[in-house]
Amino acid sequence: MSSQLTGIAASAGIAIGKAFRYEEPDLTVEKKTDVDAGKEIKNFDAALEKSRAELEDIKEKTRRDMGDEHAEIFSAHLLVLSDPEFVDAVRQKVQDDKVNASFALNELADQFIMMFESMDNEYMKERAADIRDVSKRVLAHLLGKPIVSLAEIKEEVIVVGEDLTPSDTAQLNKEFVKGFVTNIGGRTSHSAIMARSLEIPAVVGTKSVTNDTEQHEMIIVDGISGTVIIGPSEDELAAYRRKYDEFEKQKQEWAKLKNEPSVSKDGVHVELAANIGTPDDLEGVHNNGAEGIGLYRTEFLYMGREELPTEEEQFTAYKKVVESLDGRPVVIRTLDIGGDKELPYLDLPEEMNPFLGFRAIRLCLEMDDMFRTQLRALLRASAYGNLKIMFPMIATLQEFREAKAILEEEKQKLQKEGTDVNDKLELGIMVEIPSTAVMAPQFAKEVDFFSIGTNDLIQYTMAADRMNERVSYLYQPYSPAILSLVKMVIDASHKEGKWTGMCGEMAGDSTAIPLLLGLGLDEFSMSATSVLPARSQLLQLSKEEAAKAAEEALTYSTAEEVQEMVEKRFL
Amino acid sequence: MSSQLTGIAASAGIAIGKAFRYEEPDLTVEKKTDVDAGKEIKNFDAALEKSRAELEDIKEKTRRDMGDEHAEIFSAHLLVLSDPEFVDAVRQKVQDDKVNASFALNELADQFIMMFESMDNEYMKERAADIRDVSKRVLAHLLGKPIVSLAEIKEEVIVVGEDLTPSDTAQLNKEFVKGFVTNIGGRTSHSAIMARSLEIPAVVGTKSVTNDTEQHEMIIVDGISGTVIIGPSEDELAAYRRKYDEFEKQKQEWAKLKNEPSVSKDGVHVELAANIGTPDDLEGVHNNGAEGIGLYRTEFLYMGREELPTEEEQFTAYKKVVESLDGRPVVIRTLDIGGDKELPYLDLPEEMNPFLGFRAIRLCLEMDDMFRTQLRALLRASAYGNLKIMFPMIATLQEFREAKAILEEEKQKLQKEGTDVNDKLELGIMVEIPSTAVMAPQFAKEVDFFSIGTNDLIQYTMAADRMNERVSYLYQPYSPAILSLVKMVIDASHKEGKWTGMCGEMAGDSTAIPLLLGLGLDEFSMSATSVLPARSQLLQLSKEEAAKAAEEALTYSTAEEVQEMVEKRFL
Repeated sequence: MSSQLTGIAASAGIAIGKAFRYEEPDLTVEKKTDVDAGKEIKNFDAALEKSRAELEDIKEKTRRDMGDEHAEIFSAHLLVLSDPEFVDAVRQKVQDDKVNASFALNELADQFIMMFESMDNEYMKERAADIRDVSKRVLAHLLGKPIVSLAEIKEEVIVVGEDLTPSDTAQLNKEFVKGFVTNIGGRTSHSAIMARSLEIPAVVGTKSVTNDTEQHEMIIVDGISGTVIIGPSEDELAAYRRKYDEFEKQKQEWAKLKNEPSVSKDGVHVELAANIGTPDDLEGVHNNGAEGIGLYRTEFLYMGREELPTEEEQFTAYKKVVESLDGRPVVIRTLDIGGDKELPYLDLPEEMNPFLGFRAIRLCLEMDDMFRTQLRALLRASAYGNLKIMFPMIATLQEFREAKAILEEEKQKLQKEGTDVNDKLELGIMVEIPSTAVMAPQFAKEVDFFSIGTNDLIQYTMAADRMNERVSYLYQPYSPAILSLVKMVIDASHKEGKWTGMCGEMAGDSTAIPLLLGLGLDEFSMSATSVLPARSQLLQLSKEEAAKAAEEALTYSTAEEVQEMVEKRFL
Repeated sequence: MSSQLTGIAASAGIAIGKAFRYEEPDLTVEKKTDVDAGKEIKNFDAALEKSRAELEDIKEKTRRDMGDEHAEIFSAHLLVLSDPEFVDAVRQKVQDDKVNASFALNELADQFIMMFESMDNEYMKERAADIRDVSKRVLAHLLGKPIVSLAEIKEEVIVVGEDLTPSDTAQLNKEFVKGFVTNIGGRTSHSAIMARSLEIPAVVGTKSVTNDTEQHEMIIVDGISGTVIIGPSEDELAAYRRKYDEFEKQKQEWAKLKNEPSVSKDGVHVELAANIGTPDDLEGVHNNGAEGIGLYRTEFLYMGREELPTEEEQFTAYKKVVESLDGRPVVIRTLDIGGDKELPYLDLPEEMNPFLGFRAIRLCLEMDDMFRTQLRALLRASAYGNLKIMFPMIATLQEFREAKAILEEEKQKLQKEGTDVNDKLELGIMVEIPSTAVMAPQFAKEVDFFSIGTNDLIQYTMAADRMNERVSYLYQPYSPAILSLVKMVIDASHKEGKWTGMCGEMAGDSTAIPLLLGLGLDEFSMSATSVLPARSQLLQLSKEEAAKAAEEALTYSTAEEVQEMVEKRFL
């Protein structure tokens, strides 16, 4: 008889196949004393070298297959391998205590991990995870039990494991790995994000899949509903084969819409754009028929490196994106660093509440030189297409005016130097801070456009950190409060003849889309893979009906009521 | 010739007197080896005992003079003295390394301080400050150089020092210490808060006052403007004596208003209420002619102890306050813990962004037992006067409904038991989260009143941690965005025949008062010492003119423009 598990639907799609139980080798370490320290250190150095070579390979493969953004984590891993505080401590311990290298490594890794974890700071906890991942790899080499590589899977399987580390997911070969299921993780865990990016169906957080599944047992992964069926019956297999076919058919239907316009049933056109992180994401933008780029996050240019990117490097990246879009709009957001995103080389102060701290435009206005370099690169790239600049985390008109004045200065300098700059370049702001939504009428007189960043706007409006599981129930995109703020922004922009976009998760959410259409949103920017489903949904919607529903939603008391109403009328 | 310094005006008033340079004794430690460990440990234990006795005295004196809230810090200090992790480590080091106790103490204190400070978490940093303060005291006893006690000052002086620790300020005798000036600190530093509470004029953060002032030199402290004059001329002395007289006269004028009603020039009455932390603050409430208590923070009942307060303890405190107000309103806020306020015995998880975390009502709804105990105590006390209950940090109507349902359950249980409960008890919420301000029309249908908590509302609306110096420029109470939200709340409450109060710092701010009166605020709750100045200001204001100004302010672009307008028209 089959058994069924429910987890978190991490990546949509159906996969049916044999389970490949992905387990770590036994890395138990014995303590040996009175060893030949010189020899142990030599072994340790050799293991470090092998690990480094492997990581360089994985990093390169990841960069090629998935882009710089995903490869960044391996730069962090490589840094651990060359961190003298860690590596020298192992050598020292071998030398001083005359113990075997694997024992010394294991001990020190545990100490470092405990220390970082006890810091109760997300950034430090990630460092703990890096050390765990890297020291396992080195230990495996020391013990002569190299970690089985997922890259070596050469038959169609569904990977089943406790969790997949970044190095694991990076090695998944889409041709053979048809899906995966893990015990732990959530929708925003690293493995889930990777699965969506690779378009591999996945269910995470099942708690017990590794206990419930035999090697090579038949297994069904329903990444749409979060269901996993182990040892399915013939009927179940048949039902899920149909579901698989339906999903594939739907994907084909969506694909047909690639070059279609984004219009509602009653003929209202909106722009469906994509969010990107690096020029590597351009392929996805084109394959999914996005009409523009509504958010180019420039952070990745600054990450995984040891110094600021030069004006030239930035110019090259921006130009590539703008040219690739061939006249269609590209909204580039200036550096949004700080908060949960750090740059080690900037040496920013640790803060008690980083989400309410010194970040994004606040930091750029103070770190003037860095900001000017980026603005010059953007201005130069603006000559090559339809580039728009957007400032993040604007809370007051003073900040906007100050940032705009700096931009104007750099523009004049460039023009004096004879450099080509698009003179009609649009300048907008992210609306992600409640004060800015409330003051949208004042802002609309001075900016060219708004882009609502719902991820942050919701968390500030509800005063709830969306990364904090204990209060994540307050992350309510359908709250009438959020809808009211969205309406204030859209209405204010239209009154001044300006436009409003949205570039948070909400813009691609099928429950939110009817409401946003109804409120008059002009541009929806989302992950590229959501563009075609959104276009398909839009074709079925009447703007007039959507507007009525949105108007009603504003008067409701709770997000649940809004959600129920939308589901009943539109889904 | 006199010299002049500018610092931060920490506590209003003028003081003129001789400088008393408050310096710490030289606590340099020498390392001695091969000591008699037994003897050293005995000395250490004796020093611990003396320190404990001193701290108990200081704690008791503080409790008596200033109330439980201020005494709490010394409970933390006493905990350090009995923390085995710290104290045993010193003994161990003396034993193992055969070093003198003062050396061992100094080394270990430094290690602990470094460890806590490196954690970059405000709570841990405070622990570092506690260890520093306590270990200095113990060290002074070990070295036979006991710390000079400010309690022993027996002539009129102005204390000049680097900074004043909690133990220092607790010992200040108002009769002799006429003012103080420090090198470091800000308006919200501990010493500044203590100065305001003691009504001693103070200027903090002068950077160099200890370098610029000789012992017994004449010095003027202007705690209104933040100016310090060292070695003043005869003219300066005369001018500041006049200023002193004016301030005293003004205080006398204010005192005359103690029993006057709070009405505007054009006859509009509002309620001027006080914020309190413990029943010890009642004296200030009565002395300053407050018409009620707009915010009774119940946190202090839960702090500085090792377990939750019982229903009986809480009932006694609430009843005392309610009876003392003799029919006038007392708004009691249910427990607002979490965020920057921790209770060690609750063992709450550390959070990345505590201000956006699991706190206040979020925590109470989950820690149901604790919440019910408080509600029962409040319900029982409601029979003794005009008690109103208020829930903090409400973000959604669900939360309010859930909290209200729990209250109703406890009410029915009490009534069934035959306990007297005020059946018409008003139930309100703090409006301190933007979503709640935006959804005020929906909330106003279900709550009896609103109280706007501006400290938090401003920080969430601007997405800026007010404790973080790098973004504190965004803490803008006069921002048109904040005023718009305040207006939404007031208008929504009036539409449903309900009332709106305010219990943040803004309610007692002379620039904000005309705007709030103009927007129709019904109740202003502030620190007791602000009530009489506010009443005096109110008597000069016309509500009609204030309403016009407020209406205009809503259309301004920046907080600066609003402030300028108010200063020009009303101050």
